[in-house]
Amino acid sequence: MTDTIAAVGERGLIDRLRARTGWPPDFVQLGIGDDAAVIEPVRGERVVLTTDSLVEGVHFRRDWSTLSSIGHKAFEVNASDLASMGATPRACLLSLALPESLALKDFDALIDGFIARAHAAGAPLVGGNLTRSPGPIVIDATLVGSVHARRVLTRGGGRAGDELYVTGAVGAAATGLALLDAGANRDSLDAGARECIDRYERPAARLQCGVTVGRRQAANAAMDLSDGLADAVRQIAAASETGAIVHADRIPVHPGAAAFAAQHRRDAIELALSGGEDYELLFAVSRRQKRNFFGALRQCGSPAVTCIGTLEKSPGIWLKDRDERGALTSGYRHFLAT
Amino acid sequence: MTDTIAAVGERGLIDRLRARTGWPPDFVQLGIGDDAAVIEPVRGERVVLTTDSLVEGVHFRRDWSTLSSIGHKAFEVNASDLASMGATPRACLLSLALPESLALKDFDALIDGFIARAHAAGAPLVGGNLTRSPGPIVIDATLVGSVHARRVLTRGGGRAGDELYVTGAVGAAATGLALLDAGANRDSLDAGARECIDRYERPAARLQCGVTVGRRQAANAAMDLSDGLADAVRQIAAASETGAIVHADRIPVHPGAAAFAAQHRRDAIELALSGGEDYELLFAVSRRQKRNFFGALRQCGSPAVTCIGTLEKSPGIWLKDRDERGALTSGYRHFLAT
Repeated sequence: MTDTIAAVGERGLIDRLRARTGWPPDFVQLGIGDDAAVIEPVRGERVVLTTDSLVEGVHFRRDWSTLSSIGHKAFEVNASDLASMGATPRACLLSLALPESLALKDFDALIDGFIARAHAAGAPLVGGNLTRSPGPIVIDATLVGSVHARRVLTRGGGRAGDELYVTGAVGAAATGLALLDAGANRDSLDAGARECIDRYERPAARLQCGVTVGRRQAANAAMDLSDGLADAVRQIAAASETGAIVHADRIPVHPGAAAFAAQHRRDAIELALSGGEDYELLFAVSRRQKRNFFGALRQCGSPAVTCIGTLEKSPGIWLKDRDERGALTSGYRHFLAT
Repeated sequence: MTDTIAAVGERGLIDRLRARTGWPPDFVQLGIGDDAAVIEPVRGERVVLTTDSLVEGVHFRRDWSTLSSIGHKAFEVNASDLASMGATPRACLLSLALPESLALKDFDALIDGFIARAHAAGAPLVGGNLTRSPGPIVIDATLVGSVHARRVLTRGGGRAGDELYVTGAVGAAATGLALLDAGANRDSLDAGARECIDRYERPAARLQCGVTVGRRQAANAAMDLSDGLADAVRQIAAASETGAIVHADRIPVHPGAAAFAAQHRRDAIELALSGGEDYELLFAVSRRQKRNFFGALRQCGSPAVTCIGTLEKSPGIWLKDRDERGALTSGYRHFLAT
């Protein structure tokens, strides 16, 4: 018989969790086990806070993904929010609502997937909460980061004339989700398609990139692509009180997404603009910052970046496709769409 | 037709939430609306973090309690964890997984109930997350507090000989839950019973009390009674590496709980020891600290406190009932009990 978490009980699970977490660094003055965690702030730095949830049946399915990759993703979606602020992760909390029938090995896999990423990011797990769920697994992670006050990257700092740069390639995660949704057999997929599924299941937040660009003040604004590229352009433009223009032919569509779009007669640009969960970063960079921006990128491993357009003085968010100019898609709506 | 949250959409709900939150104080440098929140730490203070969830069907039922009181409780259960650390609330995050059919007025009531308590505690809502739930409502709140490094109250500071003091009266919340579970008609209940239901639904964290005792270093250890008095005694003794003895005749059983126990032929002491969710505080106070401890209590409105026992050099957690000494009940197990 497989052990379930119910057989171990809450205290047993907490002990298990603590054992898997390892010893916290010195700035964690009180970690798992008391009523709350205590961490030491960095002198002169600001505290940055973000929280994001993954809900079974909404953000993941247990018959599609391993619990380890679900734990991985629960950390990275939060890390991406810190990356887009230029903040360094310092600690995290993990709140889990779990069905009692959950196998203990699945609990362990979830924790291990989460903690491996937390360790890699230098953000020890310092607390959280375990409770029973009468329905889906609900994973709620909170990340605490720090950033120097004048190094914070927000959505609202962009100015007309700034160039918009996006890291990596887009549309991969949405393609991965579509492939899983269509019941694709992973073993029969080509490398591009498999990479799309991997990007959907195990995103990697651009932490180094966000922190380095922020620290060097090499961009005016930044946002992560959790809800897609079109949404990020809209958000930065709205918060910066500018318009924006995006050039369709410059969008770095992921090869796996392009192949999927061609195969299913879908518009690859539309998929790349509206597909969520890529967790790439979008930066607004002024002419004056450009050299510094590319210097920052070299400093963090030279990730690919593409200039996809500019922030504009005149209002309106436009997509320029060859010589035609149309309204940019309103983008991905991941919740409560009517 | 009643408006549902699905008809408003995520952005609409966030705007609504922001409008209800009001303007944040100056130390919140970036609140709701960006990828993460930014707050300014207090110089020389430590950051204290806690998170706790309320899950529909586990921690509350919508046919028992109003959404306003559920929001109230979601804040207070977290505030209680800060109180027991001696930490002052500074900011909070609210992560909600909601069924799409939720009425908009229920969404508003939930938010208002939460925010009213957040305001009262001086902890502005600075961020969070909204997502769809295919099952129960899941409310996950995270509180961030601050405390001077040497003023932190933990579970582990107790010493043999310390007296154990509990605030207020115990057993009320468990009685309130039992009454609701039995389908009690509130209108036909006496004042004591109604107060028990109120304590279950709308607990009030002992924030002033915890912060003042901590600031004055007037106790060696503290813990809140989220999982009951017996559990709190056990936890403090375990973390402090002491034994403990509790005197049954000194336990401040709430009158409503005593009446309920008498009526249902249950042991009132057992109910008061094992009943969870009272959110009172338990302090371990040395002989030397006693005068300072009572001074601290006077400073925060003189809440009732009762000495229920002592931490002991010899191991074992005992309940002394008249002249008999037996093992203290192992207490409330709120999750995954086998």
